[in-house]
Amino acid sequence: MAAPRVLVVAGTHGNEINGPWLLEQWETHPDLLDRRGLQVETVLGNPEACRLARRYVDRDLNRSFRPEWLGLVPESFSSAPRDVPLEVLRARELMAAYGSSGSLPCSLVFDLHSTTAAMGASLVVYGRRPADLTLAAALQERLGLPVYLHEGDQAQQGFLVERWPCGLVVEIGPVPQGVRSARVVEQTRLVLQAAFDVTHEAAHGLLITPSDLVVHRHLGSIDVPRDPAGRPDACIHPQLQGRDWHPLRLGDPLFLRADGEVIRHGGTEGLVPVFINEAAYAEKAIAFSFTSRERWPLDPSGPGALRALLMSDQRGEPL
Amino acid sequence: MAAPRVLVVAGTHGNEINGPWLLEQWETHPDLLDRRGLQVETVLGNPEACRLARRYVDRDLNRSFRPEWLGLVPESFSSAPRDVPLEVLRARELMAAYGSSGSLPCSLVFDLHSTTAAMGASLVVYGRRPADLTLAAALQERLGLPVYLHEGDQAQQGFLVERWPCGLVVEIGPVPQGVRSARVVEQTRLVLQAAFDVTHEAAHGLLITPSDLVVHRHLGSIDVPRDPAGRPDACIHPQLQGRDWHPLRLGDPLFLRADGEVIRHGGTEGLVPVFINEAAYAEKAIAFSFTSRERWPLDPSGPGALRALLMSDQRGEPL
Repeated sequence: MAAPRVLVVAGTHGNEINGPWLLEQWETHPDLLDRRGLQVETVLGNPEACRLARRYVDRDLNRSFRPEWLGLVPESFSSAPRDVPLEVLRARELMAAYGSSGSLPCSLVFDLHSTTAAMGASLVVYGRRPADLTLAAALQERLGLPVYLHEGDQAQQGFLVERWPCGLVVEIGPVPQGVRSARVVEQTRLVLQAAFDVTHEAAHGLLITPSDLVVHRHLGSIDVPRDPAGRPDACIHPQLQGRDWHPLRLGDPLFLRADGEVIRHGGTEGLVPVFINEAAYAEKAIAFSFTSRERWPLDPSGPGALRALLMSDQRGEPL
Repeated sequence: MAAPRVLVVAGTHGNEINGPWLLEQWETHPDLLDRRGLQVETVLGNPEACRLARRYVDRDLNRSFRPEWLGLVPESFSSAPRDVPLEVLRARELMAAYGSSGSLPCSLVFDLHSTTAAMGASLVVYGRRPADLTLAAALQERLGLPVYLHEGDQAQQGFLVERWPCGLVVEIGPVPQGVRSARVVEQTRLVLQAAFDVTHEAAHGLLITPSDLVVHRHLGSIDVPRDPAGRPDACIHPQLQGRDWHPLRLGDPLFLRADGEVIRHGGTEGLVPVFINEAAYAEKAIAFSFTSRERWPLDPSGPGALRALLMSDQRGEPL
């Protein structure tokens, strides 16, 4: 059988330097990761941003995979920016190389990120595709990772992994932008190894999936309080800082003003905050996002869907 | 008496956002800091870099205060860059406003910084000027702050505070670049308040100085190990990460390679590392710096020198 082709992207954001370093080291030390017979393609998402050690050059690459900008919906090109941003060009380039009609078509993508928030080692899933959720469930069972399910956010669109038949973001933190951390590199390596293991098993019909998974379903985001001029006039409260994944109770402190005033949680009991004080989200007016923790039965079609798309790489050859 | 004029600079590096936020909040909440009768001037060091949320635009502002670039040594202008970098222009502008022959001449400057290294709340002194060391000793006695004495480093020149008769850097960490932290804001506020207190006392001849101070004298810096192509091929070892100010013993782990190889300290026993894994120093090829911890008697001329320069603001009026 021809092995399924899996894409691993790092450096989608140029100031998240741990994923790129892991892939670089893997070239030098082939034993770092066992590819389990998969055809693994690795690529630097945004090389120019990596060179500059910035999140992006013109716009966030991981919000630039909008179908109407990629030529997938040709008639709507009119909505694309007039001077095409570097990141939209790069998104087209990545699709042309690794997309379903690309030169090295991949059925599965893992996109390696890091964050200044205390997310630990976690997964982000976009929407509810059965194959994505199957993969996430298997990784959650194996490693205990929390899963953030991002959906229905009109302000945040055009994520990379959505443009592949199946894909997950691996999100590790806390680590400052531009800082290489042995801990973050090792956490990334462990998740990626487990992802290869699970993919290999799925491709061979050997994957035993759990009956359910716990997701943290995105409900919304909250901005930092601002003064009338629009300038932030509070910090994340020290008792919230670092408490990603810990449910909020009524009255919990959220923000602290310079004069000592505390702004408390007055909303729903049990909301679970994520991406608390992520540096890059300040420009997106997100102090943190909040989610609902839910246990979902795994869609029975999921494992089959995952296997089918992994086999679709194999151009009709028998498994 | 006319009060001494004190300059407080924040945002010398545009991605260190806690100092600027403290000064902004102080405008809104005048009770945040008691200026103790001093004439305090506050200024954003590098407004354009702050707007872009980057350390600098053309070059590091805090390495741009070289006398030969500022017109202080006119005959050596030939060594200035041909196209003058924005930060050199800004350095001249700050000197013209707050320098000794400026429009609002200040005798003392506090430059507020933050770092991704676990430096806690600390002071950096450049060279051995008696007034600087007196101020540092008084702050160390009051708050227990460690003092890093930077000198004799040919690769690092042109620091802002060196161009004023007396000045200290306040350095607080760890905090990622671009992240506002209530803890860091409060630590900065406490050090700045103590600095105002000490300056007020010194100006009025009320300062009782300790007989000595502990400095961490800069000896050198060490780069991360690199492969033949010049790319970093190791991380700071997890057992060194966060251990700023803790003396190194022979055999202590310094770096960790991806294949598990550990590079250990083989040099002098007792060297004290600082600025471990500061994000901005990667481009300066500094993984950490190392220092010698020394207890120095305070130069008896120091308190007098400090008082004299604070009184020199007062244009001959009696104290």
